[in-house]
Amino acid sequence: MNTAVRQGDLSDLLRNRRSTRVYDPGHVLADEDLARLMRAAQWSPSAGNSQPWAFLVGRRGDETHRRFLPHLSAGNTSWVPHASAVLVSAHQAASGPEDDALTFSDYAMYDLGQSVAMLTVEAELLGLTVHQFAGFGHDAVAREFGVPPHWRVTTALAIGAYGDPRAADPVLAERDERPRVRKPMDDFVFAGSWGAGAGL
Amino acid sequence: MNTAVRQGDLSDLLRNRRSTRVYDPGHVLADEDLARLMRAAQWSPSAGNSQPWAFLVGRRGDETHRRFLPHLSAGNTSWVPHASAVLVSAHQAASGPEDDALTFSDYAMYDLGQSVAMLTVEAELLGLTVHQFAGFGHDAVAREFGVPPHWRVTTALAIGAYGDPRAADPVLAERDERPRVRKPMDDFVFAGSWGAGAGL
Repeated sequence: MNTAVRQGDLSDLLRNRRSTRVYDPGHVLADEDLARLMRAAQWSPSAGNSQPWAFLVGRRGDETHRRFLPHLSAGNTSWVPHASAVLVSAHQAASGPEDDALTFSDYAMYDLGQSVAMLTVEAELLGLTVHQFAGFGHDAVAREFGVPPHWRVTTALAIGAYGDPRAADPVLAERDERPRVRKPMDDFVFAGSWGAGAGL
Repeated sequence: MNTAVRQGDLSDLLRNRRSTRVYDPGHVLADEDLARLMRAAQWSPSAGNSQPWAFLVGRRGDETHRRFLPHLSAGNTSWVPHASAVLVSAHQAASGPEDDALTFSDYAMYDLGQSVAMLTVEAELLGLTVHQFAGFGHDAVAREFGVPPHWRVTTALAIGAYGDPRAADPVLAERDERPRVRKPMDDFVFAGSWGAGAGL
């Protein structure tokens, strides 16, 4: 496993991104910043411009946020509530009944992933950060908010400002300090045939 | 449909990105730039750090590129070959036979999408651009390059430098000039319940 990227080998924008568990519990996500994040998702590319994504937005203290929190899995209750906002992401999983329904795309889940990544990049540019998680009651959240059957609740996103590790729960701070690791490049970048490392 | 984002409402980085069909046919993708793009993919987040992505890389003129081109669908033969590189993306679609196989993740396709989006952002930062497409023989490409059954060929990525529309095929140049359109924000950003626009 690789444990670091040297400065200059990747943009600082992507090199410095991390999925933190330490948020600034006093940060409030402004309307304007939230709108920018959602525009980043909106202008993401998708198969045939199908735009098969949707988001439910709750900001700390509002009704959507309050109704989402009870569905968190136990492991996520210690950090998610401190983030400034939680978004529930969904992708279109089948054709819908509406006359104007988009044609279902086999790439809906892939395109939702892209859209969330673009939102994440915009967050970093704003000095904010995004930590995605799947540990919550997907079916219960779909019922709670009336998600129709041809849409699938997929992930949730904790969004906020990076917090001060010294002021955080030591268990969460320690997790944030662990080195980030990835597979070596030759394990997933191939040339000529599958499994033959490109030697980059 | 929205047809534009005003400057200042979204980072220039994401606002200026587009899926071009007009590449500079003389641009050569340097090893160092390719390595940066793949590091962007490598350091993308994924469910439980599963990293369920892989890429086959062909650069214009090399053997992998030459073997990929015959699998293009008819509509893509006019522009894809001009790009400096074509990457085939794949995601892990089931558990593998290897002892060290990653646990299969339900989020593999979503995470591959994220990884490609991060690569796309790095490309824009380098003055390059990425246009993804699905119009190629997926099964034939899997056979050609020996992709194992627990991996699924997903998309391909044309990567290169933006070209000069005046020097390009007028049909391709015209497509590049069409306005980009997206659904209005209230059609996919909800609060309180599904379908209730958040009013951003």
